[in-house]
Amino acid sequence: MQKIENFGQAVEALANRDSRKKVAIIWPQDSATRAAVAMALDAGIIDAVFVGCRAEVEADQAIMVHSGHISFADATDSDQAAAIAVGMARDGQVDALMKGLLNTDNLLRAVLNKEHGILPPGSTLTHLTITQIPSLPRLLMFTDAAVIPYPTDAQRQVQVRLCAEMGRRLGVAEPRIALIHCTEKVDARHFPFTASYPALRSQAEAGEFGPCIVDGPFDVKCACSAAAMAKKGLTSPIAGEADALVFPDIEAANTFYKTITLFAGASTAGLLAGLHVPVVLPSRGDTPQSKFYSLAMASL
Amino acid sequence: MQKIENFGQAVEALANRDSRKKVAIIWPQDSATRAAVAMALDAGIIDAVFVGCRAEVEADQAIMVHSGHISFADATDSDQAAAIAVGMARDGQVDALMKGLLNTDNLLRAVLNKEHGILPPGSTLTHLTITQIPSLPRLLMFTDAAVIPYPTDAQRQVQVRLCAEMGRRLGVAEPRIALIHCTEKVDARHFPFTASYPALRSQAEAGEFGPCIVDGPFDVKCACSAAAMAKKGLTSPIAGEADALVFPDIEAANTFYKTITLFAGASTAGLLAGLHVPVVLPSRGDTPQSKFYSLAMASL
Repeated sequence: MQKIENFGQAVEALANRDSRKKVAIIWPQDSATRAAVAMALDAGIIDAVFVGCRAEVEADQAIMVHSGHISFADATDSDQAAAIAVGMARDGQVDALMKGLLNTDNLLRAVLNKEHGILPPGSTLTHLTITQIPSLPRLLMFTDAAVIPYPTDAQRQVQVRLCAEMGRRLGVAEPRIALIHCTEKVDARHFPFTASYPALRSQAEAGEFGPCIVDGPFDVKCACSAAAMAKKGLTSPIAGEADALVFPDIEAANTFYKTITLFAGASTAGLLAGLHVPVVLPSRGDTPQSKFYSLAMASL
Repeated sequence: MQKIENFGQAVEALANRDSRKKVAIIWPQDSATRAAVAMALDAGIIDAVFVGCRAEVEADQAIMVHSGHISFADATDSDQAAAIAVGMARDGQVDALMKGLLNTDNLLRAVLNKEHGILPPGSTLTHLTITQIPSLPRLLMFTDAAVIPYPTDAQRQVQVRLCAEMGRRLGVAEPRIALIHCTEKVDARHFPFTASYPALRSQAEAGEFGPCIVDGPFDVKCACSAAAMAKKGLTSPIAGEADALVFPDIEAANTFYKTITLFAGASTAGLLAGLHVPVVLPSRGDTPQSKFYSLAMASL
């Protein structure tokens, strides 16, 4: 598989596949959600199942023009729509979910439901962002800017594994995963987050996350720039070419997210990962293009 | 005073002043330090006192051409140079310090010395960065990317006060200071850092930091973009035009620092603040220009 270096290549690769992934759109009663889905249908990268009020979707010509690639499941309210869509994911009828006009908390309740949900035992729900930064010649994943405030060791293991898996889906044979911190030294006393980093490196070397390279702590600059790494006299198999950044906590990850989108012209796609299927969870601030890219990433 | 909107204007304002600030250069035995000082001398924005081995400096023609604006104090090693320079600052003979070829820890020991140091009672040593980001039409201060890992309430008060003071030195009558977090809500249970934010807002309103506006929590994007703020339905006197960002901790601040310099083409100046005089503390990764801008900011 060829390495996917930007969102355009991802869309192209998906459009050229023999089969498309099926995505359930949960309560698609807002035009913003449908606009993103219409972009994905136009690009030929997904089939869509609209779980909600059928009449409202049928009034949307941008959707209906793709009638061969859409289907419907009726629901009378958003909570019922969430339950139906999650059930479809659990039964293997759909490959991904996308949140429409419902509360995130309500969706999470359905997703995490002990009896009917889609969180595998031993996994954890975490947020993965994939970003395309104009000055960087590759897609860059990072976690977690939205869901887990202060990851436990077990949660961080899941984050690393998910970055490794997503990286391989992007065609990187051995994704390079940098454990981020302001310091380059493991220092459990002053910087508690770094305490878990050596174990993650060892687990990666032992193959527990599949083919990948894990190293750190490094700051963002060293992780993404060979020159910065050399300037600090550091050597690492990451070599300043990280495919993924695992941030110590939500404050650092959120700062990265907001900074690259505001000041560096970055495009982003976001997913809930760690579930049986990926979930696209657009936020108010997302552009239609960002939602479209999220659908693409969920369909890889 | 006119508002200073970029480093070029700061240099120009300093060059046009009737008197120059005097900066002690501590153990200037490396060419990188001297190159930055030479730039500041060329621009006519400082007088320099070289505290170290005089013969080595005198061999540097780029410095000696400014003989009217330089002087010397002899020291036999870097620790002695630090002690002498800190003494000069305490006695009011110099207005700022700059670290040359010595260990940061050794410099901090001299600066923080209980008997001979320059930390005022009740103050705290913190790091302030001033950055010029191409896509932003103003200088932006932030703290603390380098010194205080997890600020206490008392330390954060000092950080806010220092931002307010530096902002006013930059000609902003009422600097807008945003308290950064991933969330917009104060939530002491899930996000402990936000617990201190309401008190800071009240103190600012009571005038404890001098003229300034303090609000938050906000994420980086809302703090720096009126459009982002509107999109989230937030209103604040910050109005998306923050002059300063006070980050919750060093991991978030360091992430911001490394991200804007690597991906957004930002220039930076850095200072140790909270002392009797500002201290320029260049790091290995700094460009000569960054060190020059730091000298300018220390001389405002």
